[in-house]
Formats: sequence, C-alpha cells, structure tokens
Amino acid sequence: MSEKKLGGAGLRGQVAGETALCTVGKTGSGLTYCGYDISELAEKVSFEEVAYLLAHSELPNESQLAEYKARLKSQRGLPSSLKDVLERIPADAHPMDVLRTGCSFLGNIEPETDFSGADKAIERMLATFPSILLYWYRFSHDGVRIETETNEDSIGAHFLRLLHGESPSELHAAVMNTSLILYAEHEFNASTFTARVCASTLSDIHSCVTGAIGSLRGPLHGGANEAAMELIEDMKDADDAEKTLMGMLERKEKIMGFGHAVYSEFDPRNDVIKAWSKKLADEFGDTRLYGVSVRCEEVMWREKKLFPNADFFHASAYHFMGIPTKLFTPIFVMSRVTGWTAHVKEQRANNRIIRPSADYTGPEPRKVPAINER
Amino acid sequence: MSEKKLGGAGLRGQVAGETALCTVGKTGSGLTYCGYDISELAEKVSFEEVAYLLAHSELPNESQLAEYKARLKSQRGLPSSLKDVLERIPADAHPMDVLRTGCSFLGNIEPETDFSGADKAIERMLATFPSILLYWYRFSHDGVRIETETNEDSIGAHFLRLLHGESPSELHAAVMNTSLILYAEHEFNASTFTARVCASTLSDIHSCVTGAIGSLRGPLHGGANEAAMELIEDMKDADDAEKTLMGMLERKEKIMGFGHAVYSEFDPRNDVIKAWSKKLADEFGDTRLYGVSVRCEEVMWREKKLFPNADFFHASAYHFMGIPTKLFTPIFVMSRVTGWTAHVKEQRANNRIIRPSADYTGPEPRKVPAINER
Repeated sequence: MSEKKLGGAGLRGQVAGETALCTVGKTGSGLTYCGYDISELAEKVSFEEVAYLLAHSELPNESQLAEYKARLKSQRGLPSSLKDVLERIPADAHPMDVLRTGCSFLGNIEPETDFSGADKAIERMLATFPSILLYWYRFSHDGVRIETETNEDSIGAHFLRLLHGESPSELHAAVMNTSLILYAEHEFNASTFTARVCASTLSDIHSCVTGAIGSLRGPLHGGANEAAMELIEDMKDADDAEKTLMGMLERKEKIMGFGHAVYSEFDPRNDVIKAWSKKLADEFGDTRLYGVSVRCEEVMWREKKLFPNADFFHASAYHFMGIPTKLFTPIFVMSRVTGWTAHVKEQRANNRIIRPSADYTGPEPRKVPAINER
Repeated sequence: MSEKKLGGAGLRGQVAGETALCTVGKTGSGLTYCGYDISELAEKVSFEEVAYLLAHSELPNESQLAEYKARLKSQRGLPSSLKDVLERIPADAHPMDVLRTGCSFLGNIEPETDFSGADKAIERMLATFPSILLYWYRFSHDGVRIETETNEDSIGAHFLRLLHGESPSELHAAVMNTSLILYAEHEFNASTFTARVCASTLSDIHSCVTGAIGSLRGPLHGGANEAAMELIEDMKDADDAEKTLMGMLERKEKIMGFGHAVYSEFDPRNDVIKAWSKKLADEFGDTRLYGVSVRCEEVMWREKKLFPNADFFHASAYHFMGIPTKLFTPIFVMSRVTGWTAHVKEQRANNRIIRPSADYTGPEPRKVPAINER
C-alpha cells in the first residue's frame, strides 16, 4: 500500500473500548472466546455452545444447551409479511443485501422494544437468518417456496438442508459446525465496531446488526472468502496456480485470502479449516481444488511471507459441499451475529456514545457568493 | 455522568480520520460546511444548494442548480415492489425502522453496482426518502396509497405536501428549508462515523446509509428532537416549565435537547431555528409552547450553564407545522443523508479499513470442560 499521511488512519492499534469477549493475537494460539482457545472449541463443542457462550459468558450445561437448542429450533419459521418482502427481491440481488433487508424488516414486525428483549431478539435472528437467506435464494433462483422449519439438530445442518433440500451427511454437518465456530467472533473488526458505534447511541439491536451486515458485505471484510474462491476456481492444477499467482504478484495485484490486519505470523483458524477442507476433498474425490489451494499457500509464503487467513481454505471447503460462492459471506453473517450481538450487549452495559474527531483538510472560511457570481 | 474507567471511551477527542467537509467548534461561529458558515448558508441558500455543495465540494451555479433540482424532482416516485414492502410494515413500527428498511430494500432493486454509481444512488435516496417515509405513514395510519410524485419545488415542501395533502405556505416551506440545512452535516458524529466504518470495508452506499440510519435512531443521537418535544408537550405554561425542570434537575434526570458532545458554550444552529420557531408561533397564534421553550432555555442556562442544541427549538417549530413527533428524527435522515454520503465518498477516496483495538477485560485462558462438568 502506498504511503498515506492520514491522521488516525483506520484507528489501527488505537484502543476504542473494552471487551471481555475475545482476544486476537494475545496468546500463543492467537484467538480466544471468553478465555477458551478457538482450536479447542472447534474440536470439542458445537456452534450452539459457542453462541450460548458469547451470549451468556459461560458454556451451557446439558440442560441449558438442550433448552437453548429447542428454542432456536422452534423459531426457524418466517412470518408471511417477511416472506412477501423476500419474494420481491430479484435473483440478481447481492445476498448480503437480502440479509441486511431481512434483518431490518424483522425489526419492524418484531421489534426489540426495550433492552430486556435483547436475548429474545438475538435468538430469533440466529434462528431465522438461514431461513431468510434460503427462502429468498430458492424462491428467486428455483421458483419454489420452501418450508423453512426443519428438524435438523444444528444451525449448520439446517442451512445445508434448506439449500439442498435434504439432510446433510455427518461430515458436512460437522464442517458447517466448525466453520460457524471459527467465524463467530473477532474483537473490534469493522462490522463488530459498526455494531458497537450504533449501540453507543442506544439504538435497537436490529439497527446494530443491520449495520454490521452492511459492513461485513465489503470486499475488504467478509467478502474475502468469495474473492478467494474466485481466485482459485479457474486454476487448472497446482502448477497453473503457481504460474497465475506469480503473474499476479509481479503485476502487484491484490490477492485475497492471505494476511490479516491483526495477525502477523499465522491465522489460528487456518489449520482447522484446512484440515476439514482436506477431508472434504478426499470424500469429494477432488483432484484439483485442494491441491491448488495448498500450492497457493506455499507460493504466498515463499514469495511474500503471507499466510492464509480464515477465509482461504473456507473457499474450497464450502465449494466441496455444493455451496454457491455468493452464499459464502452470508454464512459468515449466520455465525458472526453471535459476536456482534454480544458486543452490543457489552457496549450497552458500559456506554458512552462513540464520537471521534477529525483533522480538517477543507477550504478556509469563505463567504457565500450570490448564485450569479458562482 | 458517573466516572468510568474505560480505555478510549467513546473515542472522544481522538482523531479517526480527515475530512474536508465540515468544522465543528473550530471557528467563531462553530459550524462550517466546506468553509461556509452555517448561519450564512441558512440565511442565503436553499437546502438543495447545500446538498449539491456537500456532494460536489462547491455551490452550484444557476444552471447546475436547475439541472440538479430537476433530477431530484423527477425521481420522487417509488417502484411498486418498494411500495409493497412499505405496505407490510405496521402502523406501530418505529418510523426510523421504516426508513432503514426502505433504504436497504432500495439497495436490492437499484444497487450502486460500482462506485461510479454513487452520485446517482445519492440523488435517488435524497429524492425518495420523504416518499418512502410518507407512503408508509399515510398508508398505515390513514389507509391511503398516496401519489409520491409532486411538483413541489423543494424537498422540504415536498415532504409537507405528502404529509398534509396540500402545498405548504411559504413560511412553512422556508422553515423546512432551513431545518434541512441545519441538520445536513456535522463531522464525525456517531451516524456519520457508522457510515465511514462501513465505507472503509468498501461496501456499497446503501449499506453505509442503512447503517447510519440505524445509528441516528438512537435516543442519544437523532432521537433528541423527539425527546425535546416529549419534554415540553405537557408543560402548561412558562412557570410550569420552570417547576418541572427544577424538579427534574433535583432528581438528576436526563434533560434532552441541551448541551452537546463537542460544543461547550453554544450551538450555532440554535439561534437560527429559535428565530423560525418564534415566527411560526406568531403565525400559529401560540400562547404556550414557544414561551415554555424560552423558559426552559433560561432555566437550563441559569442552573446548569447548559444551552439548547439544534434539537430543542426544532421540537416546537416542527410541532407548529403539524408534524407528528414521531416523524421528527426521520426528517433528520432526509437532511443528513447528504452529509453521510459525502463522507462515504471521502472515505473511499483515501481509504484504510477502520479496525481499532480493544482492552481485554475477560477471563484468563481456560480449558473447555466436558459438558457434564459444567
């Protein structure tokens, strides 16, 4: 990136508040949720346990988890007015715009009312986001009005069921579970910070999440897993990957899915999703995409000392499960809504409106000229 | 407010970027847009000229202004799918939720596509926001489907026409014009900063504005003019106002419409809107609300050295024009969309993703317990 003289550019390294939810790059492993290492969570618990952890600061016991999952399962249905809205969104709309609109509309018909309604609203969002996304997707692309209530045990399996119309394999459900855990929370990233700025005005939780979805939509943020897929999808084999990347590096083109704003040596989420991508490749009988991805990793490290971030191996993993590329970032929403809403509650509990200053670079004071003298 | 130990609380006084659009509290008068003093703008130009100024950094000449206004006027109609959405929002919804959803939906059916489409999208939002708000309001409250295309010359008059079903008086159109100028821009306030954080991910402009609407909705931000109205509406006369306020001060209750996060001595917008409120009171034959407001101003200064901010006399002014209290903050949106979108373009022109840090206050690293040991 070229040198820019810009006061407080991107607030990088500047403390904008406190959080008890997450550390990024502070411990050996690099990412913890409420003190738990991300690698251990990904290995041992379900996404629903992580969602509960972020909402309530502690992992659930057996009965708490059973009740929590039952509540989530019972709330997957969509109100008819929301379905009407989704049916009016064209097939070529950006799926993130669909989720942003669906969340915003939900705030009209099922408002939070006051902050004591936060947990209820959060659970409803968690339960309905896959339904909102796939009701629109299947209606606009396939012309079918799907039933969004399923008996799938997990949010990840529910998502795959709505997408493919059949229960996913155990492997696929397990990969979705892990993926949702990896994306759930990441401290003061841009979308979470958006949610906190909104929360700092004491606005409602649907406003906070709607705004966060809008920020996650940006290609410098959530859009990276889709960009990674676009990078690798046309590579014929590992050697072609090497040639393509070397050309891009020579032309100084931006290569998505590598490096990170906070991590400098590795992204702790990469090893986890890479291992699942390998398993899926073996199951899928893949002879191209996984090998291509591994070669990309080698080339980027050799040439630029850049490592794959959480997004890179997610691209091949999602692809092996038959997920259309344009739904990659919306999956991120289905997961990160847990982190966003936990930050909203945290901001509310110790709030001051977030209102920074700016360095002025505009014209000196001047007089308004008459319109015929402009 | 009680003492809080909070790293970087609210980023107050911290520089988060550069802007050429606005100074707040830097000159004698306290507020400039692109170098022009707010008081002079309010006296001499139309809101459309200010909107053009913020979009293009210079005031328009006669032909530029005529073309700009013609473009805005021609775009007041709503697509039928958007009307369908608005008809599905109940009368008791929060009007800011309606605007947030309307803006978000517009992004689905008329997306920005790429950044070269920004100005077009901005003009469309400016033209449609009054239509979106009042189509929903009149349908949900009065059961009528209004025609949103009018020949009114200004956005302010168009708004009043849609609300009341008839052309406003010259006085009312002039007050709306001034009010929209006063609210157009205010540097890195919370909603504008929300828009900039979103823009910093290189997301689309509808996401940025949708997020900003959500932040403006908060009672610590845009909601203050409505809160001011709620404060004064039940006060019987000036003496009753004094008694009520003294009681509230004694009980340390929060009094909205006074003081400001950045201004410490006076809000330069107050004198302007106060003078218009007086004119409206005279025309209206008011013997209560204006006098009540003036007494509130006196008491707050005498007791707390707090001055009325832009919101306080807006309450009585809007009320005299027959505007329902719950539409006060949406008017703010119709105006501030000019400032938000100017900041979005500025952020894009010299961008780094906004990603601050946090002080961690959570649990130390811990092991995941088995579920039956929790």
